[in-house]
Amino acid sequence: MMIVRVTPMRTLLRDVSIDMYLSLSTTGLESFSQLVYQDEYGSYFVNKTEIDDFPRFKFRGILLDTSRHYLPVTAILKTLDAMAYSKFNVFHWHIVDDPSFPYQSSTFPDLSSKGAFHPMTHIYTQSDVRRVISHARLWGIRVIPEFDSPGHTQSWGKGQPDLLTPCYRGSTPSGTFGPVNPVLPSTYQFMTKLFKEVSSVFPDSYIHLGGDEVGFSCWKSNPDVRAFMQKMGFGGNFPKLEAFYMESIVNITSALNKTSIVWQDVFDYHEKRSSLSVVEVWKDGCYLCEVRRVAKVGLRIPKDTVLHIWKGTGYKAELSRITKAGMRVVLAAPWYINHIAYGQDWHNSYTVQPLNFSGTDEQKKLVIGGEVAMWGEYVDATNLHPRLWPRASAGAERLWSDEQQTSSVDKAFPRLQDFRCLLVRRGIRAEPLFVGHCKHEYQGI
Amino acid sequence: MMIVRVTPMRTLLRDVSIDMYLSLSTTGLESFSQLVYQDEYGSYFVNKTEIDDFPRFKFRGILLDTSRHYLPVTAILKTLDAMAYSKFNVFHWHIVDDPSFPYQSSTFPDLSSKGAFHPMTHIYTQSDVRRVISHARLWGIRVIPEFDSPGHTQSWGKGQPDLLTPCYRGSTPSGTFGPVNPVLPSTYQFMTKLFKEVSSVFPDSYIHLGGDEVGFSCWKSNPDVRAFMQKMGFGGNFPKLEAFYMESIVNITSALNKTSIVWQDVFDYHEKRSSLSVVEVWKDGCYLCEVRRVAKVGLRIPKDTVLHIWKGTGYKAELSRITKAGMRVVLAAPWYINHIAYGQDWHNSYTVQPLNFSGTDEQKKLVIGGEVAMWGEYVDATNLHPRLWPRASAGAERLWSDEQQTSSVDKAFPRLQDFRCLLVRRGIRAEPLFVGHCKHEYQGI
Repeated sequence: MMIVRVTPMRTLLRDVSIDMYLSLSTTGLESFSQLVYQDEYGSYFVNKTEIDDFPRFKFRGILLDTSRHYLPVTAILKTLDAMAYSKFNVFHWHIVDDPSFPYQSSTFPDLSSKGAFHPMTHIYTQSDVRRVISHARLWGIRVIPEFDSPGHTQSWGKGQPDLLTPCYRGSTPSGTFGPVNPVLPSTYQFMTKLFKEVSSVFPDSYIHLGGDEVGFSCWKSNPDVRAFMQKMGFGGNFPKLEAFYMESIVNITSALNKTSIVWQDVFDYHEKRSSLSVVEVWKDGCYLCEVRRVAKVGLRIPKDTVLHIWKGTGYKAELSRITKAGMRVVLAAPWYINHIAYGQDWHNSYTVQPLNFSGTDEQKKLVIGGEVAMWGEYVDATNLHPRLWPRASAGAERLWSDEQQTSSVDKAFPRLQDFRCLLVRRGIRAEPLFVGHCKHEYQGI
Repeated sequence: MMIVRVTPMRTLLRDVSIDMYLSLSTTGLESFSQLVYQDEYGSYFVNKTEIDDFPRFKFRGILLDTSRHYLPVTAILKTLDAMAYSKFNVFHWHIVDDPSFPYQSSTFPDLSSKGAFHPMTHIYTQSDVRRVISHARLWGIRVIPEFDSPGHTQSWGKGQPDLLTPCYRGSTPSGTFGPVNPVLPSTYQFMTKLFKEVSSVFPDSYIHLGGDEVGFSCWKSNPDVRAFMQKMGFGGNFPKLEAFYMESIVNITSALNKTSIVWQDVFDYHEKRSSLSVVEVWKDGCYLCEVRRVAKVGLRIPKDTVLHIWKGTGYKAELSRITKAGMRVVLAAPWYINHIAYGQDWHNSYTVQPLNFSGTDEQKKLVIGGEVAMWGEYVDATNLHPRLWPRASAGAERLWSDEQQTSSVDKAFPRLQDFRCLLVRRGIRAEPLFVGHCKHEYQGI
């Protein structure tokens, strides 16, 4: 909660006597700074003000994707600044993915030396990561790294032999690779070491484990995977294999005292799986190496795991299903602002109603927040900021403010225009919403 | 025409012996500079090369709109640089429009002091304009200013009383204003003085006079305009009034030895006008209130006037019609790249075939070129460059290169990716086409 009190009526900033209580110093100070205005002669003033404010959702995130394009650290730091101006408090760092692995691991240096776009210039060193985290911390922003697996890992395979599943064409390897190989003990040994490092480098209590968009065709083609499926009693049910893998990874990070966030797919697998038959068997050759009976199970991941909704179609129904199962949710689906359209497409972000789904009050409380996602297919440092700002700020207001008081796009428009000029004055390349001007235009080139 | 010859086989740039003839020094030198490449150790090389090249179209333009948003001069100069790298040779400066009048006229200083977004910070002084023109000249780029009238002139009215038509509600002025008032002699006196100044400030032989999107409702509401229509025998035919106005403006600039460019609407008015029936009847209560005969007329503007096609719908038919009338054309319609879409929308610019319309060879020769238009509703210096580049470069290749040799989007893709990295290395914030990286990423923020 944040309380700001300024008296008297209208005072020059330098003379202001502020009776100000900030229990959240960064957001409170930010609010205060945005109360300051200039008169026509350039003097700074604050009007008499009393603010008693608090965020509607506690998780207000921005996702940056540094795998599809590399983002220089300066671009990330600038994003953190602008996030603070909009009161975002979570930087979801989608740091690696198929195209490149820029994270320089101290345990597995080959991951970036072979998997980054360039081993020297397109990486995040340990020092870079520390710089991002400490810059974020000063703004009250938590940094949650995502190491997405078992899919989205093509770049991992370059520096870590045997990590990915060899795909087969008929009875011979095709030379291509699929998702992480879930049948080898070495996979889990590798992941245990990697996540041990990552858990210590990124101090936040959350870690994002991905788990989305796993294609099964390569697994299906591989005889070792098929043998493993048989041994485990998974039948032909690949969602079971995926669930088995994700549960293993979640358990690894749980043991490191991290709370996991995973994409909604992990919940969906569970749903698919639990509608299936009962007994699962482990045999010699699997890494448990004993025969076991596994009863019909629920979701075998810790109850505090957060599900992350990204699929645009049917996201309200998904909100219902996941919260009905008692799990917490972060909503990203309606805020994929890498998707651009001509015109005032910030409306789309602003008019999202995260709790407008069918469920009890208890269920609604399980929606801990939302996230604006800037996937990197078409974005790098050249266009990141104008594409993020002020469009992301529309989502930020939805996540911070009371729904009733911010229901009108028309009323939001001049406020967002002013805010955009504030961003520009502070050096953020925030693009215009429509025809007009700012007193202080962007002067860079 | 441009001839570049480099020998021998592969030579360090510093040792190169160049047998190079450049009859167009800027484009030839630009081609040469783009032949230079770095090896893995950073040395610069040129391979043996022989280029004999010339542009397909002589008019290869970019439109910037400095009225809907003000663009600092530095942003314009940078655009000129990137234009030269893509071999654009016309900067169409849509300098004023409804929202603001940033051009500081020496004859009518009130136009910008009252019509600009800000009279001191959001204007182009005479010195700014000279700077733009001389920078462009060094790159072989002509600067064609557009002073669009009679529509798109709301900002003009602020600094020039009686210039715009007072609109009426019933029998009383409503307080709002419409297009330029075409019935007052003072209008033409003003325009004569303004264009005399503009013709001398902008030395290029072309001048753009606009003439698009004139709404007739205000003219219709105004009793003086109606009386004028009556006097002139225009009946209720407002396109005739518009044509009358545009012909007057074209004649003013012709007398100043300028060749006019006008938007297609001016041709369309002519067509509408001449296709109307011969006798038009007005009665009491209508605004001409008399019966008159109006002869069928031709287009009364100089034959060398260039028509500028901007309407996306039916632009091929318009190409046919205008060239059939023996008039020259510049095509902008398919290159409105202010319109953005998610994904690789540069394909749209690349696959345009400007001569793919029904007409004779003689007609095709009348298409003197094309123009990539960046209208300013959603664009200012914060996002101009990533939105322009490299998407505009796709249009540039279409306008420069042989159609047969550049028919494949797939073949163009890696070439455009490389070129985009060249732009980034040269300091242009050119956005990425798709997943990947440049050796030298953009390092600004």
